[in-house]
Amino acid sequence: MMVLITYDVNTETPAGKKRLRKVAKQCVNYGRRVQNSVFECILDNAQCIMLKAVLSDIIDKECDSLRFYYLGNKYQTKIEHIGMEKGISADDILIM
Amino acid sequence: MMVLITYDVNTETPAGKKRLRKVAKQCVNYGRRVQNSVFECILDNAQCIMLKAVLSDIIDKECDSLRFYYLGNKYQTKIEHIGMEKGISADDILIM
Repeated sequence: MMVLITYDVNTETPAGKKRLRKVAKQCVNYGRRVQNSVFECILDNAQCIMLKAVLSDIIDKECDSLRFYYLGNKYQTKIEHIGMEKGISADDILIM
Repeated sequence: MMVLITYDVNTETPAGKKRLRKVAKQCVNYGRRVQNSVFECILDNAQCIMLKAVLSDIIDKECDSLRFYYLGNKYQTKIEHIGMEKGISADDILIM
């Protein structure tokens, strides 16, 4: 299934930047980074549980926000895009 | 239906900040801002077409990215959250 992961983090601090890099590295194992802190991952149930646990350990729950949206298997018709298409690698930090 | 809107914009420039403010103002008419540049909107088809046209006019298509995810009507079970819940008003700019 497609799981959309959105991550809200303060990247003005080196620690925030580092957490975004770590989150991105985990997410791109399962899909792609479509925006600076938005990831489209293809996961089965077991992978989803594991990834949630891993990301939960990376983020700072006091100040970061992580959201998961379950788009199912027929996700191709559920997504539209306007503007620049970004090919962002897991290691990139773009200025938001 | 629930439409998730994610907006990737460089807020290091005053123009980018202004575009994010404008996008947020439009989106929160129809829902809430769950992260700095992530909006959950409840829209019918006509509203959705209109909002897409309005947002399309606001953003800079050369450098911004806007994505729409259609979560349907049974979206309540399709969303999970970890970390800080942000109550972000349309006028706020948080540092990403």
